[in-house]
Formats: sequence, C-alpha cells, structure tokens
Amino acid sequence: MKNAIAKLRTKVEQTNPLVHNITNYVTVNDCANVLLALGASPVMADEICEVEEMVSKSSALVLNIGTLQENIINSMILAGKRANSLNIPVILDPVGIGATMFRKEAIKAILNNVQVAVIKGNLSEIAVLAGADVQSKGVDSCKNTKLDSIEIAKKVANTYKCIVGITAATDIVTDGAKYIEIKNGTPIMEKVSGTGCMIASLAGAFCAVTDDYYLATVSAIATMSVAGEIALDSFKNNGTASYKIGIIDAISKMNEKSFAFISHCVDCC
Amino acid sequence: MKNAIAKLRTKVEQTNPLVHNITNYVTVNDCANVLLALGASPVMADEICEVEEMVSKSSALVLNIGTLQENIINSMILAGKRANSLNIPVILDPVGIGATMFRKEAIKAILNNVQVAVIKGNLSEIAVLAGADVQSKGVDSCKNTKLDSIEIAKKVANTYKCIVGITAATDIVTDGAKYIEIKNGTPIMEKVSGTGCMIASLAGAFCAVTDDYYLATVSAIATMSVAGEIALDSFKNNGTASYKIGIIDAISKMNEKSFAFISHCVDCC
Amino acid sequence: MKNAIAKLRTKVEQTNPLVHNITNYVTVNDCANVLLALGASPVMADEICEVEEMVSKSSALVLNIGTLQENIINSMILAGKRANSLNIPVILDPVGIGATMFRKEAIKAILNNVQVAVIKGNLSEIAVLAGADVQSKGVDSCKNTKLDSIEIAKKVANTYKCIVGITAATDIVTDGAKYIEIKNGTPIMEKVSGTGCMIASLAGAFCAVTDDYYLATVSAIATMSVAGEIALDSFKNNGTASYKIGIIDAISKMNEKSFAFISHCVDCC
Repeated sequence: MKNAIAKLRTKVEQTNPLVHNITNYVTVNDCANVLLALGASPVMADEICEVEEMVSKSSALVLNIGTLQENIINSMILAGKRANSLNIPVILDPVGIGATMFRKEAIKAILNNVQVAVIKGNLSEIAVLAGADVQSKGVDSCKNTKLDSIEIAKKVANTYKCIVGITAATDIVTDGAKYIEIKNGTPIMEKVSGTGCMIASLAGAFCAVTDDYYLATVSAIATMSVAGEIALDSFKNNGTASYKIGIIDAISKMNEKSFAFISHCVDCC
Repeated sequence: MKNAIAKLRTKVEQTNPLVHNITNYVTVNDCANVLLALGASPVMADEICEVEEMVSKSSALVLNIGTLQENIINSMILAGKRANSLNIPVILDPVGIGATMFRKEAIKAILNNVQVAVIKGNLSEIAVLAGADVQSKGVDSCKNTKLDSIEIAKKVANTYKCIVGITAATDIVTDGAKYIEIKNGTPIMEKVSGTGCMIASLAGAFCAVTDDYYLATVSAIATMSVAGEIALDSFKNNGTASYKIGIIDAISKMNEKSFAFISHCVDCC
Repeated sequence: MKNAIAKLRTKVEQTNPLVHNITNYVTVNDCANVLLALGASPVMADEICEVEEMVSKSSALVLNIGTLQENIINSMILAGKRANSLNIPVILDPVGIGATMFRKEAIKAILNNVQVAVIKGNLSEIAVLAGADVQSKGVDSCKNTKLDSIEIAKKVANTYKCIVGITAATDIVTDGAKYIEIKNGTPIMEKVSGTGCMIASLAGAFCAVTDDYYLATVSAIATMSVAGEIALDSFKNNGTASYKIGIIDAISKMNEKSFAFISHCVDCC
C-alpha cells in the first residue's frame, strides 16, 4: 500500500492533472496551493455558464458545499453530469451537512443527479448521509459518537456506490466491502481551517490519475495525515498558522520516505 | 482587567463556542483560523436559505460588510433578527462604511432591524456612524482626524445601545458611559490585511461566553494588539506576510503571561 | 531602468495609493497583502451598486476574471467606464481566457467598453487575445508554444492601444513598438497560486503613481520576479507554502539594492 501511494504521487507529479474545484471561499486558497504542492493544477470556476466547458478540460471535479449559495447547486449538478458523461471522477465533500436543511437538500439534489466517485467527510457528516439524526456543530466532527464508524461508512458507500472516506483520529476508507484504517495525523490538525477541504482536493488529484478510487482516497487522507505529523514542529515552535504553512510545505516536499510513516491497518477490526 | 481577560480566554478554550460569520471573501480565511487559534469554532454561511438555522446553532454572530453583495444584506438582517430572538450576541464591523452610499445604506438597514451587542471599527468608520461627514480611504483609518474619538465612540454606543470599540494607535472601548483605552499594538499591523476583521471575529468568540460584552470587546482588541507586539520579530526578521502568520501563531499560544503585557488605562483622560 | 523602478516604488510608499480590485476569491487575500507590502492600500468591492463610487475614490482599477460570475461583468464594465472618465488607469488580467467561451466573451465585452492601460497575462492568455486558437490548461501557461511571444505581445498592445505584459520564464513588456525582456524569477513560482494575480495588483499600484504605464508594468513584473529569487531559500528550506510567504515578505522589505538584481534587456532581440 505504501509503495502504491508513493507511485500514485509520482504519477500526479508527472502528469500534472487539472482539477476543477467548485468550493467554498474560506479555504479555496489552501486547496489551490495544496494541489500545486502535490504536483497537480487547480482551477476554480463556479459560474453556471462555464462549468460544463471547464470540467470537460479537467481530469477530476471536486464539489465542496462549505459556503454554498443556492445558485451554485445547479452549477455543481451540471458540472457533475458532464463529468459523468466523460468518465471524469467526482469527489464530494458534504461540509456541515448536518447543520442546516439547506445543506441536506443540496447534497440530496447533487447525489440524485450525479454519480460520485468519492464522498469524503468527518464522522458526523457521513452519519447524516447514512440517515442518522446527527446535529453537526458547524463543520466540526462529532467526536463522541457511539455509532459504528465502519458500518456507517460501508452503508453510505453501498447506497451511493462510491468510495467513502471518514476523517477522524482513526480515518476509515471503504468501498462498501473492504476497508482500511489510517492512524496518522495529530489532534492539532483540528486547530487549523482547511485540512478537510484540502483532502477532498487531493483526492481529486489522485483520482485524476488512476481508476482505483479506493487507493486514491487512501492516498489523499494519508498524504494529509502524514504531513500533519511532519509539520508538528512548526506548531510546537510557532503556533497554528505556521502549522498550516508547514502542512502544505510538507506535502510539497514529500517523497517515498515520507510515505513509509503511514500507519494503516487493512480489514483490521 | 488582565485577569478577567485571561479567564475569558480560558472559558473560550473550554467551551469551544461556535461563531457564525457572514463576512467578506478577502480575510475570511484569517477569521476562521484566528477563531480556531483562540479555541472557538468558526462557521461561515451567508446563503439566505440557511442563515437563520445556522445562527440558531451558534453562540455569536459576526456581520462584516467588507465585500458586501446586495443580496447578502437580507441574509445579515434575517440572521441578526434570529440571533436577537435567541439572545445570541451580534457583532457588527462596518468595514469601509465611509467609502460608498451603498455601505452606509446597508449598515443603516442592519442597525434599523438588528440590535447589535458590539460595533467595532476604525475611527473613520465609527465617525460616520456618529454622523460625521468622513471620507474614508478604502478600509483604512482616518489617521489625522481632529474629532474627539472618545466622544464619537460614546455617541455611537448611546445611539445604538451597544458596546463600541475603536481600533487605532490607542484603542477605545466604551459602553456609552465608562470607557477604556488600550495602548498595545504596533504600526506594522496596518501593513497586513485582516487584523480588523479578525478582531470582530474574536469579539464574537468572547461575547459567546459572557454577558459582559464590554469585557469581551476589550478582550478581543487586547488579544490582537498584544499578539501584534509578540509577533514583531517575525516582521523584523522576515516581512509582512510572516508577521500575519506570527500574529495568529501568537494568539494560538497566548497564556496568562501574555496578557500581563496589556497596557490599558481605565477612564484615564 | 533599475533606478526608475526603485524611484517608482518609493513613490508608492510615499503616496500610498488606493487600488480598487474586482478580482477572484482564490488569491484575493494575497493581492490585498502584496499591495500593503508594497506600500499601497487595497480595496476589494464588486457589488454593482458601489463600484462606480468606489473606483472614483481610487487611483487604479484592477480587473481579474479568475472566478468571474456573470453578474460581475457589468460591475467591471461600469467601474472601468467610470475609471476611464476620471483618467484612472485600468489593469486587466484575463485569467484562463482560453479555457471557456464565457471568459472569452467576458473579456471581449470589457475591452469593447473600457480602455485599459495594461493587459497582463501568461503567454497562452495573451495569445488568445491576439486571435490564436490556444487551449489554455486552466490558468496555467502554455509552455511550449511555437508562437513568437514578442510579436503576440505587440499585436495585442497595438490592437487595444495599451501596455501588454507577458509573464513567462522570460517576461516581456511592450507598448506595441518598443519592448523589454525581464529574465528574473524562478520555475518554483509556478508551484504557488497567486503570483500572476499579484503582479496585476502590483501593476495597479505602480500605474497609480505615474503616467508611464510601460515603466509601471515593468516595475510590477520585476518586483514579483526579483522577490521570487530572494525568497528561494524559503522554498528550499521549507516548501511551497513558505515560499509564497517569503515572496510577499521580500516585497515588503525590498529596497534599491534588491532592484539591482533585475536582469533585463531592452530591445535585445
């Protein structure tokens, strides 16, 4: 697995895929820079007049509802349908879906119209998709849920016939049957904005260069989590803003040795 | 006062309040990260379909008109009214109000419909609210005004029955009767974007955990100003971009000792 | 030339011009901070109700279509017309114009209605304006074009009666007759988002303080390129995110000695 991730990273660097992001205005700059750090090319475009043409030139589409406006839902659906027709993978990040009916309905509309390759969220977000009545606190994770994360992830993966990634202290990726746990990362990652959004964009870059979306999702989560560990001294020596810089720095400098630190567990429970 | 500020900071860290921001797209990432650095949780949402539900789950609402679009004025008013009905404090940052009629009218509409807890601005912005005919230069402060800052702040506080904070070389906070001056900060803070917006978001976090909005506003301004001093070496050694990183870093690492540096003066003039 | 650039920089610092940006939400924060780093004042405003009033108080207008929404095209045109009537220079950055018909039509509408002082883009963007059928890959440069960059730049400059700047390994600035090549910068600058957008905003600041828009455009490109060299250790020691911080830091600290590193060539080919 570690070797496969390292190879996929190299493929991103060599092919420099264009990743089209329809995303929020809070962390959009981080998403652009992390894609460049990985070796991909970002493009951000949400105007309904151009999203279909833009996605048709791209190798992946990332949909993130962090600061969704109503008129952008149609941009997402049109871009997603075009991506489907061209076999371009679509990554969905249902940010804060538990917070409002508007977000729930928007995600429902997207999932009714677009076949997604990957859904990435924290536990409370994925739990909402699984039908749980979870009250998300803004965009934060529901830390003390008693629900079984793996069952939740598998249910959503089977319902929407896609890969599901749950980010948490122990991350989970599943295709609905097999699953993997990733035990990297640090709690300090919750003290900076954008790590979740960046994972979705990274997943776009990895999905752009392989048909194995399971591996691509693992690669995205592992890349961010290992970077979170590498950058920890930036937090200790300086603080949270330096930590975010350190995470993107680490991603720009990662090599095979970095991936050796991935601590994972296949079908381990 | 210093002890009270330090205690309030600890309360933010312990209760991790959700702060709903309807703000501009220039400094929104800084606002999110500074809230996380302080120990609060940010959520940004401006779509009219969801702002009422979002604010009802939050502990404070921050309204910032830095890049206001006309359709967002109603989002601000609806969110503000809902916040009022739930006793959730509303912080208003009238960015660049002196620059255009559009901004003046927007702030008037907000203040006619929403009871705000705190108005935070630079001297020229608060002077416009006091009825002065001030031409603001973009979002910058009117540095050489001859107007009496304390009288201006008190007038606005009494008119809108709220706390008023003026950020300047010497900051002022007043409830309309008593006032305080804070003499921290550095002139280099004007060389980075977002320090003012971040103060408004910090005020949201502090107001979320106390009914003493006067103390909360002092805490927000003092936190930013002291951080500006702590980070000064980042500017000297590197430059303005490192300085902004250093300011957020400092806020994430502040402790009781940091607050000992607050240089203030109660009813001193 | 180096002395003239250094003098112009000093003039920006002394007069602190207000630069009105109607720009994208990806790199807007970098544009604000780089203007402050240079010594100018940024204001971002795109609401149609206020752009004419805002630009009338500004000393330059920067139009950047990076994440253009359809309703903002009219804001750009109205602001641009008002700027023209007041002799305020307009800088146009046709980000990703080759990517979609929507962007091509938007730029056409702007150029039909507004006399621009400067058009700044990468080679593929300027080539589209010259009538070439270039497929741009997102916002990236077309690296291996066989087209003659200098002829393309001159053609666009003559067609739109403005200065044209092309950013590439060797940058070109022309007024349609004379031209200059600038050979600073590093390839790592393509690994961070926003260097191009920041050049457009810097051009706004320089144009704000001189009628010599040719010199102003050279100054903007040279400032960014030399900063890219100064900051290179930040990349080597840390990574791409630190590199972006380092670039803005360098611009905030530049002095006459920095400009001595400008490597240019007037009418050299």
